[in-house]
Amino acid sequence: MVVVMSADATEPQIAGTVHRIEAAGVTAFVSRGSNRVVIGLVGDPLAIADLDLAGLPGVERVCAATGGLKLVSREVSPVRSVVDVGGVRIGGDEVTLIAGPCAVETADQTLRAAQMAKAAGATLLRGGAFKPRTSPYAFQGVGRSGLDILADVRSETGLPVVTEVLSESDVDIVAERADMIQIGTRNMQNFSLLRAVGASGRPVLLKRGLMATIEEWLLAAEYIAKAGNSSIVLCERGIRTFEPATRNTLDLSAIPIVQRLSHLPVIVDPSHSGGRRDLVLPLTRAAIAVGADGVIVDVHPEPELALCDGGQALGWPEMSELSTAVADLSAVMGRGRSATPRRLLAS
Amino acid sequence: MVVVMSADATEPQIAGTVHRIEAAGVTAFVSRGSNRVVIGLVGDPLAIADLDLAGLPGVERVCAATGGLKLVSREVSPVRSVVDVGGVRIGGDEVTLIAGPCAVETADQTLRAAQMAKAAGATLLRGGAFKPRTSPYAFQGVGRSGLDILADVRSETGLPVVTEVLSESDVDIVAERADMIQIGTRNMQNFSLLRAVGASGRPVLLKRGLMATIEEWLLAAEYIAKAGNSSIVLCERGIRTFEPATRNTLDLSAIPIVQRLSHLPVIVDPSHSGGRRDLVLPLTRAAIAVGADGVIVDVHPEPELALCDGGQALGWPEMSELSTAVADLSAVMGRGRSATPRRLLAS
Amino acid sequence: MVVVMSADATEPQIAGTVHRIEAAGVTAFVSRGSNRVVIGLVGDPLAIADLDLAGLPGVERVCAATGGLKLVSREVSPVRSVVDVGGVRIGGDEVTLIAGPCAVETADQTLRAAQMAKAAGATLLRGGAFKPRTSPYAFQGVGRSGLDILADVRSETGLPVVTEVLSESDVDIVAERADMIQIGTRNMQNFSLLRAVGASGRPVLLKRGLMATIEEWLLAAEYIAKAGNSSIVLCERGIRTFEPATRNTLDLSAIPIVQRLSHLPVIVDPSHSGGRRDLVLPLTRAAIAVGADGVIVDVHPEPELALCDGGQALGWPEMSELSTAVADLSAVMGRGRSATPRRLLAS
Amino acid sequence: MVVVMSADATEPQIAGTVHRIEAAGVTAFVSRGSNRVVIGLVGDPLAIADLDLAGLPGVERVCAATGGLKLVSREVSPVRSVVDVGGVRIGGDEVTLIAGPCAVETADQTLRAAQMAKAAGATLLRGGAFKPRTSPYAFQGVGRSGLDILADVRSETGLPVVTEVLSESDVDIVAERADMIQIGTRNMQNFSLLRAVGASGRPVLLKRGLMATIEEWLLAAEYIAKAGNSSIVLCERGIRTFEPATRNTLDLSAIPIVQRLSHLPVIVDPSHSGGRRDLVLPLTRAAIAVGADGVIVDVHPEPELALCDGGQALGWPEMSELSTAVADLSAVMGRGRSATPRRLLAS
Repeated sequence: MVVVMSADATEPQIAGTVHRIEAAGVTAFVSRGSNRVVIGLVGDPLAIADLDLAGLPGVERVCAATGGLKLVSREVSPVRSVVDVGGVRIGGDEVTLIAGPCAVETADQTLRAAQMAKAAGATLLRGGAFKPRTSPYAFQGVGRSGLDILADVRSETGLPVVTEVLSESDVDIVAERADMIQIGTRNMQNFSLLRAVGASGRPVLLKRGLMATIEEWLLAAEYIAKAGNSSIVLCERGIRTFEPATRNTLDLSAIPIVQRLSHLPVIVDPSHSGGRRDLVLPLTRAAIAVGADGVIVDVHPEPELALCDGGQALGWPEMSELSTAVADLSAVMGRGRSATPRRLLAS
Repeated sequence: MVVVMSADATEPQIAGTVHRIEAAGVTAFVSRGSNRVVIGLVGDPLAIADLDLAGLPGVERVCAATGGLKLVSREVSPVRSVVDVGGVRIGGDEVTLIAGPCAVETADQTLRAAQMAKAAGATLLRGGAFKPRTSPYAFQGVGRSGLDILADVRSETGLPVVTEVLSESDVDIVAERADMIQIGTRNMQNFSLLRAVGASGRPVLLKRGLMATIEEWLLAAEYIAKAGNSSIVLCERGIRTFEPATRNTLDLSAIPIVQRLSHLPVIVDPSHSGGRRDLVLPLTRAAIAVGADGVIVDVHPEPELALCDGGQALGWPEMSELSTAVADLSAVMGRGRSATPRRLLAS
Repeated sequence: MVVVMSADATEPQIAGTVHRIEAAGVTAFVSRGSNRVVIGLVGDPLAIADLDLAGLPGVERVCAATGGLKLVSREVSPVRSVVDVGGVRIGGDEVTLIAGPCAVETADQTLRAAQMAKAAGATLLRGGAFKPRTSPYAFQGVGRSGLDILADVRSETGLPVVTEVLSESDVDIVAERADMIQIGTRNMQNFSLLRAVGASGRPVLLKRGLMATIEEWLLAAEYIAKAGNSSIVLCERGIRTFEPATRNTLDLSAIPIVQRLSHLPVIVDPSHSGGRRDLVLPLTRAAIAVGADGVIVDVHPEPELALCDGGQALGWPEMSELSTAVADLSAVMGRGRSATPRRLLAS
Repeated sequence: MVVVMSADATEPQIAGTVHRIEAAGVTAFVSRGSNRVVIGLVGDPLAIADLDLAGLPGVERVCAATGGLKLVSREVSPVRSVVDVGGVRIGGDEVTLIAGPCAVETADQTLRAAQMAKAAGATLLRGGAFKPRTSPYAFQGVGRSGLDILADVRSETGLPVVTEVLSESDVDIVAERADMIQIGTRNMQNFSLLRAVGASGRPVLLKRGLMATIEEWLLAAEYIAKAGNSSIVLCERGIRTFEPATRNTLDLSAIPIVQRLSHLPVIVDPSHSGGRRDLVLPLTRAAIAVGADGVIVDVHPEPELALCDGGQALGWPEMSELSTAVADLSAVMGRGRSATPRRLLAS
């Protein structure tokens, strides 16, 4: 971090700023230019981040330097990580396809969606038992019974399960039943929940907040990692902008940026970003081409009957087409597709 | 809600859409124009909101109508509400000033900040024991001991206390110790937490999410109200935009819009929106002039030493100036300033 | 400006960066910390702004410092300016009310709107002869004949006229007929047009681009000033955000920030920002309370018949109420209202 | 377009709204639901767009339907267009690569950049003689002499030239010298300039405004088409969001949406959107994978010496890598790469 003093900062103001920095155990180096003083800070970058120097007298501007990442930083671990989810790998040389219904509705609907997913080459099953909804009167998911359905469908299909948790009090049961815990976009900065899933030890799928910068997203991952769990997969799912044609604007530039800053795998959700079925296929192709480690899509045996976000779910014809596209794009990127582990296929 | 069918929608597509609507127990009325069909939906607006018609074949566009508000809607309760917080009224004819430190650091710092707040005419004390921070390595607040400090300062000064809760597991203890529970901007759509504070029965200060539309904000209030608690005060605190000169962009247009849509009181936080001490006074004036029911500001006995957001905290000179401005603007708006209740003054 | 080298920058990379800076005639001072080098730049800030260092090898980040303002900067001219428009002052101790129809439609409509404006205390008449419209098929304004109408209405009422110019080829005729030339939000970075109005010598009303930062807005003013014309009034009119309840989000924080950075007067347009009649009065109050030097509002003798933006135009009842509010708020801010100059009243 | 009347709209208000619509020559069909009236509008959609009904008494909300497109609409012309630029095709079965320096600096630099572009398979040369710059003190381009340089380099290399025009008064000379005229992002709603390039007859490259919705962008194209020129290629180049890691956020979802709404070809600029050299390659791959008809990139013989945006320009190693990626991705998409026309190669 660098502190730029204003042109008319007085010597006492400079000394005061340095004193404040050093009082925090941070080393300050003062650079004097012809008409301006700049102070660089060296030390624990997170103690530095806490200094709140921006409003001090004589301080014109504070520039962040490295974002304060530690455990999830690429600097810390130059090799990109592979996360193991029930035997399925995310990251590395393969592109992982995750698919399933937006919401678990019934055992039959979930099984049929999972079979479609598997037939299309998906190696992980997504499905929401607890659904975050803007209105309290909207369908909130089937709840804990949905976890049982997902567990049954996993037995049937061999696909490990990723499902969202909304409440700290559900973390234990979700961690027990699912193979991967999803933190949804609205909870990306629910720090209590991040700590709880971090402590659970289960792999975590961390969606980007629709209002979060890349830096904030990585720091949310850092919360999970600091709680003892570095099995984290990031998921870009669109940010909120002024454009009304899509529900959110998918930020594909974030993928190479994240891969440069962090060693964690990063995948893309082309279903929720656009909220439109017709965008899922082209955005999936783009996601793989930009270098994502996988995609997660909504699939439903009868999209027109879906209780939640049916407008974006793929039916079989689209899912089949997507499967081919994933294979073709993965190949041109020099990557394979992730495979269902043998022991699971045997089950 | 209105469904606009596309120009080339077929009769079976129209019939299918109607069937889907009616299957949900909603009445559909079909309007046929020269070259387009429009379907209006009448029924439980929340069942309607759940239909997810946007992706159905033949549907071009779905227009939301009233936002699905029930309990917090102005239509439901045309008279604007007054919320009682430990004997202090928010809403009605008065303008309420809430002030205190961003973070509780020590008993002495909190007491001195509270005395400054009270001297400036504040009738409620704000102060964070639990602090949501972007980085896990940043100061996270003093925790539960801060609740004790706040309770002591309340005894000393007579000012009822508002403090933030971050975790469902802390709701009970915060509800027991504080007079009003704050839901911060990052938790506005933490629906589990909304339900928990709703069930606690304590008055709630609900900050607007920094990326939340007004509609989403009111629906978050509806979550709290649906859990049995309609003592809710809304707080505009800035939204995230592209403008880098302020931390967030204070959306003062939201105040009259909220007051038109909802009966709940609405106040403004000019400290956190801008993140700049020099903006607190002019934005406070603007907030009262636009019609807000109060303001909540950061004050610190020694802003330059604050552990959190010191760059925006007011010292005594600015707090004194703000006090005068609040009085003057309240007067020109034909409103008084809220008073500390006699019984509390006696304490 | 400050250049932060990356942690692993090599000595040749640092030397190369310094060489590039010095080759541009700028002085570089190199600050070496324990694990990072920072380079401060001193010299012509605009030569500095042109360096484009961000992508050089070894450079991690470039921090802007002062924004490169010269002629319009508050540093350059600490006393805030007053702009004279046909004898009416904008800036200084008074609050100026500008009102008139969004679009000039007929002589009668324009005259009646001007009489309403004058009766409400407006001292300048606004009215568009050339209208920028999103669709080429929408009403584009009456064109040059509108300038004649405005000139006639000025003769009749004594109100100097501000009107928008859209084309470089119309600058001369607009400058000849009007007292003040408006640059609309979509043309804020139409640099050819900025230079042309700068050369015209007429006072300019420069609206903020709906997607422009404050810094970009002030640099647009700098274009006009550099072309020889410093009679510039800035106008905040809302920025584009994700919030759909208003056409744009009025950024009132921008007013004190602009006043701190620039000596130019700055006013507010509460009609176009919200696009809603019901917001004009509260936002006008807020604008004056935040410290704006004036407001500009749409008024129409029959708003429901307006050819353009009728949904936001005030009729007489609202205009009368606004007049009282402007007087009351100006008084509480210790400012008078600008008066129509005697010589014009005589006409 | 659909007008939703408020729940408490009176019969006279409904009648008044209908009267207003019909007075504009538009047909209104009134749909009465149990508790709400909806009015559908049929007729010239642009007359409809002009109605400004949103503020009328009793009107709650107006929903746009088709965006008012005519000449550029996909409905009007279901087959996607191919635009011919000096013998090079944009659109159709091929993917077109456009490359060149951000700014023309010297004849030598431009020629060398063009040779790099051609060697990498580019079939059109980009290069700015007139540069729009935020600051008036920044390098503004070499001006008209740059047009001569570009013409010479075209003779030398056979690459047709696309260059930006900033001023109406330069349209004739640019149209005379260049093969394609670029409208930059800041001028997307400079309607006078749009009309002028429309009248010139030259093919136009229309960049999306960084603040423009897709609908506004297409309506800007409609301005050009209405002026008699339908040889228009659209170019997505990033929109302004809150994310600071990239200069703008590339909105790749816009590509399939535009292709659904309009018959015009649409390409992507991965250089200016991110403003970062390291993003150009992955975003180029993503652009082709999402279905874009081409990409336009900055290339410079010595990026570190570029006078403008050097941080994003590709040198030869990156350009070579990009060439391979364009070929591979085009192939997987079942498209070829556009070829330089034989007659030009002969030159």
